[in-house]
Amino acid sequence: MDDTSQRHRVVVVGSGFGGLFAVKALRRAPVDVTLISSTTYHLFQPLLYQVATGILSSGEVAPATRDILSSQRNLTVLAGTVKNIDLDRQVVRAHALGRTWFEQPYDSLIVAAGAGQSYFGNDHFAEFAPGMKSIDDALELRGRIFGAFEMAEVETDPEQLDEWLSFVVVGAGPTGVEMAGQIAELAHRALRGEFRRIDPHQAKVILLDAAPQVLPPFGEKLGVKAKQKLERLGVEVQLGAMVVGVDADGLDVRDADGSTRRIPSRTKVWAAGVSASPLGRQLAEQSGAEIDRAGRVHVDPDLTLPGHPEVFVVGDMMALDDLPGVAQVAMQGGKYAAKQIKARLKGKPSGEPFHYFDKGSMAVIARNQAVAKIGSVELWGIPAWLAWLFIHLIYLVGFKNRFTTLVSWFVTFVGRGRPQRAVTVQQVVGRQAIERVAQTDPAAVGKSGAPPSRSVA
Amino acid sequence: MDDTSQRHRVVVVGSGFGGLFAVKALRRAPVDVTLISSTTYHLFQPLLYQVATGILSSGEVAPATRDILSSQRNLTVLAGTVKNIDLDRQVVRAHALGRTWFEQPYDSLIVAAGAGQSYFGNDHFAEFAPGMKSIDDALELRGRIFGAFEMAEVETDPEQLDEWLSFVVVGAGPTGVEMAGQIAELAHRALRGEFRRIDPHQAKVILLDAAPQVLPPFGEKLGVKAKQKLERLGVEVQLGAMVVGVDADGLDVRDADGSTRRIPSRTKVWAAGVSASPLGRQLAEQSGAEIDRAGRVHVDPDLTLPGHPEVFVVGDMMALDDLPGVAQVAMQGGKYAAKQIKARLKGKPSGEPFHYFDKGSMAVIARNQAVAKIGSVELWGIPAWLAWLFIHLIYLVGFKNRFTTLVSWFVTFVGRGRPQRAVTVQQVVGRQAIERVAQTDPAAVGKSGAPPSRSVA
Repeated sequence: MDDTSQRHRVVVVGSGFGGLFAVKALRRAPVDVTLISSTTYHLFQPLLYQVATGILSSGEVAPATRDILSSQRNLTVLAGTVKNIDLDRQVVRAHALGRTWFEQPYDSLIVAAGAGQSYFGNDHFAEFAPGMKSIDDALELRGRIFGAFEMAEVETDPEQLDEWLSFVVVGAGPTGVEMAGQIAELAHRALRGEFRRIDPHQAKVILLDAAPQVLPPFGEKLGVKAKQKLERLGVEVQLGAMVVGVDADGLDVRDADGSTRRIPSRTKVWAAGVSASPLGRQLAEQSGAEIDRAGRVHVDPDLTLPGHPEVFVVGDMMALDDLPGVAQVAMQGGKYAAKQIKARLKGKPSGEPFHYFDKGSMAVIARNQAVAKIGSVELWGIPAWLAWLFIHLIYLVGFKNRFTTLVSWFVTFVGRGRPQRAVTVQQVVGRQAIERVAQTDPAAVGKSGAPPSRSVA
Repeated sequence: MDDTSQRHRVVVVGSGFGGLFAVKALRRAPVDVTLISSTTYHLFQPLLYQVATGILSSGEVAPATRDILSSQRNLTVLAGTVKNIDLDRQVVRAHALGRTWFEQPYDSLIVAAGAGQSYFGNDHFAEFAPGMKSIDDALELRGRIFGAFEMAEVETDPEQLDEWLSFVVVGAGPTGVEMAGQIAELAHRALRGEFRRIDPHQAKVILLDAAPQVLPPFGEKLGVKAKQKLERLGVEVQLGAMVVGVDADGLDVRDADGSTRRIPSRTKVWAAGVSASPLGRQLAEQSGAEIDRAGRVHVDPDLTLPGHPEVFVVGDMMALDDLPGVAQVAMQGGKYAAKQIKARLKGKPSGEPFHYFDKGSMAVIARNQAVAKIGSVELWGIPAWLAWLFIHLIYLVGFKNRFTTLVSWFVTFVGRGRPQRAVTVQQVVGRQAIERVAQTDPAAVGKSGAPPSRSVA
């Protein structure tokens, strides 16, 4: 609260991988760090699909940020959505949980506000095909996926039954592959024996992509391997298929030959594109930086905004050398920015540009099945899956929930249970209701992490 | 779906303690059982306060009903809200997840639809003081409780700060005592060191009741013990205090001397009264049975509806001999009804009335602190807490989530973590939005367990 503080003030926007690693790297620095985030938790986004499919609880992939960082004495965590960044005044302005506004001045700023889902200009698809970017998305999809099997059990009309038992995942990147694989495992394995009128095994799971390959960044060989594994799991993989329409009962798809067809399906998942935080556009407008089609800001080689060496942009909001929007880029970017700030404070600014070290990438298809590309080494099947498990356990070691996560995985991978299937009325009808209210009274629906609901009215 | 089935058809309404135990007791009976419930899970209501205060995940207190009962071959589980019971035609009519309607005929019916919160005619309190009856309630309160500390951290106005840091629990029964105790533990123990501008220890936790005693059914001695323990934890216990108004910023309270005062508080929890499912009134109207003020149906000594020996009413919906609305009464009632049905099918109807065996009751105040009354034995402090832990572990043995629950308890009681703090935007503003939409378009907001949200529009 003391704006006359002598210490260098660092403001970090966002509590994802970029923000968290930046803050941690400033732990012993002689600075006052303020972390401002619209969520009160650090979201482990790569495991969100496991929340959607009933394996993990929301708390296991979203530990409270101030809990993780509570021992960092030079840090203040504030819950609020940063709406404006004023580069001239060096101040960020945030909306505290949809209610109060507050301002925070900075000497150095690290913007790591991430990206949301993109529907490539078709935002009306969102209602029918939720994305996979937030806890809300994951719980919404959990309600829809498990709810579809429930509806199928009471449905008597064969056509509607077919719609309920058809699941379509749009986008064959890692998230799409993981979702499709887990829905197939649900249908063919986890739900076995639970229904009397339907056989969940009848469910159709379709993975669609406009690209000609599954998991393009993994290269052709692993793409083919992943496709084979998915098909063996019972997933129908349709490539070269562009989604041109989405509604309540299905999708319209245009194939590579130009013909259009209809896929009846009640339950659609959108895992096809990302769009950077709107803060990117603000930064670009004020600084003259360029932004790419996904709204990401073109930064200088040291991750700073052109003309503003005090402002770093990292993670999914940043455009540099075609780096992918993955956790590793954000983590390394956050750490790099913190290191630059520390070096400058010591009077020894480093001229070294950001160098991304690619530790490899992996995607899980099902239990015991994954693909991984680590440098020039390509793994698939059980070895790739064990590598995935090992790396995620290492990462989770920093979190209190690692042990229950391990237990949940044991239950799911060794047994066949889905321990987290509880859905709420709000999850199920809430989003729609919120959208309706937002049209008439936007102030009532602040996008925020945790306000008492009265406070937003 | 085959209504011409030769087997005796039992329909059970509700998947709470009464319904679950009735279904299980019919496991080996030569009957076709259909369980219809508005939720897709069995809610372990006594632990709901631990979901609200970040100890357990929703999945841990709400395992999927069809998962728990999947091996029971004579059972079909259908997700739907029973809206009508036609005693003449012997058919129940249900709303499948807010969309389709379906009918289910029965030869025997067990109605165990439970009870909701009652505001004693002041339903407008609900918006400001959520109850503690459902997963939605618990997650709503989780958002409000943790959100209040977040708001306090950014608040600069001292009056508003005070409102954010004041928590009021209305109702000093077991649920109210447990909530107040856990909020106090949060403030004084779990959140220690996580904030920079506020000290969560400053938080005020008030437990209010119009009665002159805490935990009246436990007797005076344990009531006094519980009050002492709560006060030692930092809870302000205000007895003989009747709530006469609730709004966004506080409560109006009338004390025993007739004077009225104001308690400023943003976060209120209502744990004061219950109101039986509206199905009770329907049954009463059709059969001529009486209902009490809480909407519970006066049943015959064999738990059947007067004049309808084929219809049993058990659990919180049933009024008999002033039995309390606790899990044990529901469990034993469900089992008894199943036994009666089995005996009749064997041609040996038992004339024995329902006899409730009181196994005792307990309430947790904090870790290591509880009160318990088992017959004439009264326990408090650590022995009572160990008894609570032991009994809950025994009960949970039937569920897959027992192990993660144990881990979560270890984290909370031995450590001081709150592993489940994730809240969603929907949880926080969703309920209000749903209520608004409900006013203009009730069909869009079916009270249901798990429909894909589009299906309800």
